[in-house]
Amino acid sequence: MTISTQSRRAARPSTLVLLADLGGTFVFALEGALAALGGHLDLFGAMVLAFATALGGGVIRDVLMGFLPPSALRAWTYPATAFVAAAVAFGIDRHVHIPPLLLITLDAAGLALFAVAGTEKALNAGLHPLSSVLLGVITGVGGGTIRDVFLAHVPAILRVDVYATAALFGAVVLVFCRRLGLSAALGATLAAAACFVLRMIAVWQHWQLPGSLAAS
Amino acid sequence: MTISTQSRRAARPSTLVLLADLGGTFVFALEGALAALGGHLDLFGAMVLAFATALGGGVIRDVLMGFLPPSALRAWTYPATAFVAAAVAFGIDRHVHIPPLLLITLDAAGLALFAVAGTEKALNAGLHPLSSVLLGVITGVGGGTIRDVFLAHVPAILRVDVYATAALFGAVVLVFCRRLGLSAALGATLAAAACFVLRMIAVWQHWQLPGSLAAS
Amino acid sequence: MTISTQSRRAARPSTLVLLADLGGTFVFALEGALAALGGHLDLFGAMVLAFATALGGGVIRDVLMGFLPPSALRAWTYPATAFVAAAVAFGIDRHVHIPPLLLITLDAAGLALFAVAGTEKALNAGLHPLSSVLLGVITGVGGGTIRDVFLAHVPAILRVDVYATAALFGAVVLVFCRRLGLSAALGATLAAAACFVLRMIAVWQHWQLPGSLAAS
Repeated sequence: MTISTQSRRAARPSTLVLLADLGGTFVFALEGALAALGGHLDLFGAMVLAFATALGGGVIRDVLMGFLPPSALRAWTYPATAFVAAAVAFGIDRHVHIPPLLLITLDAAGLALFAVAGTEKALNAGLHPLSSVLLGVITGVGGGTIRDVFLAHVPAILRVDVYATAALFGAVVLVFCRRLGLSAALGATLAAAACFVLRMIAVWQHWQLPGSLAAS
Repeated sequence: MTISTQSRRAARPSTLVLLADLGGTFVFALEGALAALGGHLDLFGAMVLAFATALGGGVIRDVLMGFLPPSALRAWTYPATAFVAAAVAFGIDRHVHIPPLLLITLDAAGLALFAVAGTEKALNAGLHPLSSVLLGVITGVGGGTIRDVFLAHVPAILRVDVYATAALFGAVVLVFCRRLGLSAALGATLAAAACFVLRMIAVWQHWQLPGSLAAS
Repeated sequence: MTISTQSRRAARPSTLVLLADLGGTFVFALEGALAALGGHLDLFGAMVLAFATALGGGVIRDVLMGFLPPSALRAWTYPATAFVAAAVAFGIDRHVHIPPLLLITLDAAGLALFAVAGTEKALNAGLHPLSSVLLGVITGVGGGTIRDVFLAHVPAILRVDVYATAALFGAVVLVFCRRLGLSAALGATLAAAACFVLRMIAVWQHWQLPGSLAAS
């Protein structure tokens, strides 16, 4: 399976996909580094959290798929992108106030991208659609979860309104688009849009999933 | 090794083993979901913790054995069982009070089952008995450990009296039964019984392992 | 890749490397067990933390390299060494006060050893130098990070002055020594010395990396 995955990947690294992937890596790394600096960590801590946030989800997906070493360690572009993002975060942290809404929007874009890319990689490797959806969600939320565990927080996926749910929605949309016979590009676009829009509406409307009686 | 593992597995999926495995998955998922709801998490958080608690131990074992993708992602029955358990937990949480002793008993049964199944899978793959015992313990306690880390608790295996110790005992009994030439079914039954009984006696008698001077 | 890694390893297990590896395992396991006992955990908890601290970094490296099962589960010597260290920690905890400087020195030696061994293993497997450096750092700091996550602490690598930085320095020195054509033994010695000396100077001089404005 590893070999077939590799050969299919080798056939498909369009410039658009690569740019999108590196864009998601940059945004997530920036967020991770800013979280570290907000938590009074030093430069190295910021780099570690940048790496973990940006690359963690994809690494867990690749480990579970048996695609080893993971993409993040095969190509120097991924760690280098995370490194640059951490340096940028460190540079601007004292001087620039980043509007929260900008960060939330970029994060929703990164989430949509990673969730769709993860689901697609799993489907291409011949995994069951249900497993592919799970791997897509893990790709989208895995990095942020590692970041929260490192900061000794309960992970955002367990707390934040409609975050992992949006990743799940995007992954499911991708599976349905495939079943309907849509082209890979159209399916991926629709799925990423579905995830992004659901996440932004949830932020805007303060949507929440039902909780237990004790919580309400 | 992966291939030999697969072929041996393919030869051995008796209905009893499968039912027992899914039973353990259901119980652990139920516990994970109830822990999430007790921690005021929403429906999605309950699902995430149900999956992590029920499938985490087996996933770590399969990753360490190089059996990838892990069983939990190969067959849709495992995630589906965890999903149903989370839905059940969500449905009954407001209406039914589950007696703690029932939960503890079910949990001990799940622990015994997972510890023995994990040890057996490792032995069948030709791993060293000591490594197989470690993998059995990881299978039994891994999911609950991930759940506790997510909830930012010190894992129960580090705190609770004779929990991982019971898994260790069951795994060691299995190795000895194999050495004595007992049949696989008899060895697994004796080992699971050993783990279950030790755990229940420890709960009943409030047994504790010796701690440091400061703790006593 | 797994096969080539194995065969190269099979050709290189010099007694010195093995002794150094087991020495690092012993020191890290001792530290893990002492941390557990300091946190009022019982004997089994001490063993779990000893294993996780001593073997965690190498296990994560081997998983990411696809070298499965990881070394720690292939040879019984690694878990056995960790087990003995945990028993020693448990035995001396009540009677002997270990000077902090001795522990810090031993820990710096273990860090240097693991960082260099991890980088070398990755380079030998043909990984990119940047990835090899990352894997070396992960090998050095991974176990301690798991220990801290289990104890619900923010990991030391995110807090402690020039700890992971020292591992990074050693790994980079090794890559440069290789590029300069130095022998494997000389390169490893220089790299380990670089890591160890940087770490000890940082402890001695209370060096800190620059943090965010809020932290300073």
